Amino acid sequence: MYTVNNFLKVAASGGSERIETIMEKKEMLYEGKAKKVYKTDNENCYIVDYKDDATAFNGKKKGTIAGKGVINNRMSNYLMSLMEKEGIPTHFVEELSERETVVKKVKIVPLEVIIRNIAAGSFSKRFGVEEGSTLRNATLEYCLKDDALDDPMINDYQITAIGAATKEDLETIADLTFKINDFLKAYFLKLNIELVDFKIEFGKTPDGKIILADEISPDTCRLWDATTHAKLDKDRFRRDLGDVEEAYIEVAKRMGLIGE
Amino acid sequence: MYTVNNFLKVAASGGSERIETIMEKKEMLYEGKAKKVYKTDNENCYIVDYKDDATAFNGKKKGTIAGKGVINNRMSNYLMSLMEKEGIPTHFVEELSERETVVKKVKIVPLEVIIRNIAAGSFSKRFGVEEGSTLRNATLEYCLKDDALDDPMINDYQITAIGAATKEDLETIADLTFKINDFLKAYFLKLNIELVDFKIEFGKTPDGKIILADEISPDTCRLWDATTHAKLDKDRFRRDLGDVEEAYIEVAKRMGLIGE
Repeated sequence: MYTVNNFLKVAASGGSERIETIMEKKEMLYEGKAKKVYKTDNENCYIVDYKDDATAFNGKKKGTIAGKGVINNRMSNYLMSLMEKEGIPTHFVEELSERETVVKKVKIVPLEVIIRNIAAGSFSKRFGVEEGSTLRNATLEYCLKDDALDDPMINDYQITAIGAATKEDLETIADLTFKINDFLKAYFLKLNIELVDFKIEFGKTPDGKIILADEISPDTCRLWDATTHAKLDKDRFRRDLGDVEEAYIEVAKRMGLIGE
Repeated sequence: MYTVNNFLKVAASGGSERIETIMEKKEMLYEGKAKKVYKTDNENCYIVDYKDDATAFNGKKKGTIAGKGVINNRMSNYLMSLMEKEGIPTHFVEELSERETVVKKVKIVPLEVIIRNIAAGSFSKRFGVEEGSTLRNATLEYCLKDDALDDPMINDYQITAIGAATKEDLETIADLTFKINDFLKAYFLKLNIELVDFKIEFGKTPDGKIILADEISPDTCRLWDATTHAKLDKDRFRRDLGDVEEAYIEVAKRMGLIGE
């Protein structure tokens, strides 16, 4: 396990020292806002490489969060390993290095899947509900992944009407997403962290199975200290609140991924 | 029944000659974009008075469509009478005059309820789907009635989370809305008109029953000639296509509400 100092050194070096080399990295398939995805010599697997680049507001705000890629890689892999044990299928195969992970090849369902337990961010703005308000029930919402359209919110009827996913896939996605919410909420609460909301994505394997893909990290979850309600997530970057790296490290420390 | 000439005369006079006077009009409760609503001497009833005022884009565009109030009043009442016979509960009680109708007093559920059979308008824009594209299924969508928030789209989870309606009421509303779509689609198709989409609202009676309220008219439905696809609705006003009054009259004529 890293100490904070070691972690900062590795993060600063951009280091990607590989722990195992079970798989050869081939050409880059795709470079996203926070990750690169590579083909491998195994046709069923990709390698994901986490970057420190941070963007917000659909790419309008850009920056870097030092060490973020390392933390997000470790955190996603650790949470997905735990979820697999709870019967939630994920794309995680094996961590290769600080920033690189082997994942199952999937076709991403073009939806951002969002659960909210507490009102915040765009939900508060859209519906005029004060940030921090408790909701009468957790909400599930979908946004169509389409940068040119600004990822518009879309409902089940609309998703099937335009063929973005089938009714059956949506039912599986909704079931899994609520299970993931139950798991993550309980997990983070033990670390005195409130899971305010999170965004996940799903993929379909070549044999048609829907599995959790993408990442679970302070980039994609709103995490508040349960006592002080201090933000421990990407909102510190989005809203220029300072102590951005410190927030990511704090979550990693509470999760036991970085030592004191 | 009006002839077109008689109709135009009545419409121009702003005439509101009352056919029956079963009810006394008391103070105005509310003036909306296209209607005024009055209290009456019957505590279970309101009187709705249809105006010729037209607005679009959440009030940003304003104008007048001569005779619209008369047509929308007659058309809504006629369609609601037919729907009552199909077991769809509505707020319609009795037509009082060209522009005035007695309706049941309800508390409006603060949702715009929209069904789309063919892609058009904001759906096409939001999801990048060409206007006129057939959808794989009819879509139901809700918008939260809140001018200040620009009537944002909202889903079932979000509606119950903020307490805008209950799960049970939403189930009733969805059931009724699909029934209304089936009825209206078939009705208009007999008049060689395609029902592209429509917006309705529901209200709750003092004894807790959900009923169709508001209006059903070319203000609230997209109606295209089934052969030429000519627009016979408020899009002619929204998009400055000309022949706005003529379109409303054409629909009223096909419905047999105005003679040749």
